[in-house]
Amino acid sequence: MVANTGDDFEHLGLHISPDIDSLTYALAGIDNRETGWGRGDETWSFMAALAQLGGETWFKLGDRDLAIHVERTRRLRSGETLSTVTSGIARALGIASRIVPMTDDPVRTRVLTACAALEFQRYFVEAQCRPEVSGFVFEGAADARANTELLAALNDPALRAVIICPSNPFISIDPILALPGVRSAMAASAAPVIAVSPIIGGRAVKGPAAKMMKELGLDVDALAVAAHYRGIIDGFVVDLADSHVASGLDLPVHACPILMLSLEDLEGLAREVLAFADCLAHSAPLILRRRSS
Amino acid sequence: MVANTGDDFEHLGLHISPDIDSLTYALAGIDNRETGWGRGDETWSFMAALAQLGGETWFKLGDRDLAIHVERTRRLRSGETLSTVTSGIARALGIASRIVPMTDDPVRTRVLTACAALEFQRYFVEAQCRPEVSGFVFEGAADARANTELLAALNDPALRAVIICPSNPFISIDPILALPGVRSAMAASAAPVIAVSPIIGGRAVKGPAAKMMKELGLDVDALAVAAHYRGIIDGFVVDLADSHVASGLDLPVHACPILMLSLEDLEGLAREVLAFADCLAHSAPLILRRRSS
Repeated sequence: MVANTGDDFEHLGLHISPDIDSLTYALAGIDNRETGWGRGDETWSFMAALAQLGGETWFKLGDRDLAIHVERTRRLRSGETLSTVTSGIARALGIASRIVPMTDDPVRTRVLTACAALEFQRYFVEAQCRPEVSGFVFEGAADARANTELLAALNDPALRAVIICPSNPFISIDPILALPGVRSAMAASAAPVIAVSPIIGGRAVKGPAAKMMKELGLDVDALAVAAHYRGIIDGFVVDLADSHVASGLDLPVHACPILMLSLEDLEGLAREVLAFADCLAHSAPLILRRRSS
Repeated sequence: MVANTGDDFEHLGLHISPDIDSLTYALAGIDNRETGWGRGDETWSFMAALAQLGGETWFKLGDRDLAIHVERTRRLRSGETLSTVTSGIARALGIASRIVPMTDDPVRTRVLTACAALEFQRYFVEAQCRPEVSGFVFEGAADARANTELLAALNDPALRAVIICPSNPFISIDPILALPGVRSAMAASAAPVIAVSPIIGGRAVKGPAAKMMKELGLDVDALAVAAHYRGIIDGFVVDLADSHVASGLDLPVHACPILMLSLEDLEGLAREVLAFADCLAHSAPLILRRRSS
């Protein structure tokens, strides 16, 4: 799994990697299902004590969650790469899957608004996505080296599929695509590249994706998401509610239930997407023809 | 109050100042009376999560306690001095007294043992004071500048008294005396300098003082403590159990109950010591004569 590190930031002297943490906690089964961020079974003594000392409290750090930030920061300062730290922590938590930061170099997403180019977490957490968005900048992306493990996987003839999860295209996926070589490696990959729509029936399942699309002057629908990924995807997965978009697209579309509310939903969608990918892989010439048409 | 910063160390990337913290928590009324360190009403989620990640857990950091280390480290990295950070935190906690770090420069106590020169916290916490001690080194002390507030107070003709608390002479008081100018400023101070014995009836009230005295080849008694402070103290306070030491000393001795188990004990001792100091101040010529005798 490739994690977006454009959300990373330095806070209270700690290196915080929200996307890596979300993946880590979810895969370790210790994520907070209610909030959608942080750890379950959390306590908040640190935050209360920090408030008492007059410290910054706009970004909530639970007591258990703090451990990953402190430990990561310590290891980074001692010279380890973000990749090594991430896999070390994953191993300690018994996670079998690989979690690959998109790069070990600093990339910082800034959200362009009428008043300022906001640091991502200032926009997302402090301002709660309220400011109107006019664009995004991925600071450092042009000079960053994409994770060699990511590039190697994309170049691997044995790769089964590349899945672009139903994440926010602008702030979760685009930072990864902005890294030198990633977009071309995805386009050149022998494996089918599939995106799952984060929009169902004109609404974002979660987060500010729909609001952003509106502010950027885009139609808020699955079609606009597919257009956003034009040139890199070989197939597109939409919800049953959006099966009509297939007629407007010149690439294979698979419609199935994509709303993930339970672990069963998630596993069901994963199976559907992989089956669709395998189907595309076996009819590769057709896809290539479609793509160039 | 002057805090010994020889115990300070960097741990998990955080600047930890155990003596400043103890003073801060005690003066804010949030100290842990049972353990004698850390905060009361503490939770331990961070430590449990850190253990889960394979982090270092020999030095226990409670969730609430963590806030002071994170906030101090952040402020130090942003360029504030330890003195400014310390008084800022004290103010936030509503503390009226001044807490003055002995210096803003790094001084690190090392405990000399048969096998190694141990960092103080490695000796004190990790090795639980087990190794036999042959001496102490206060790294950086010779080049450190004593806190100007401390030197100004010692030179202030209005200063009422200098009280050397019943702390460990070797590891709590000597680091302060090792700073350039402190010993001479104490000797030259117009105010009486009083030490309270940390030894009662041949035993240390708390900590490794008695064990250290034995290992250093000293008698374990109040007399040896007074000898240790020879040249800088004008008066010595011992427990009633040790009133006999007066005959062996060529300086004024005051005997009273010095064991502090309750806040009342503490306030009672403070009153006794200040009264003794005032008495010495008014009979200053006598003291000076005694001292030179």
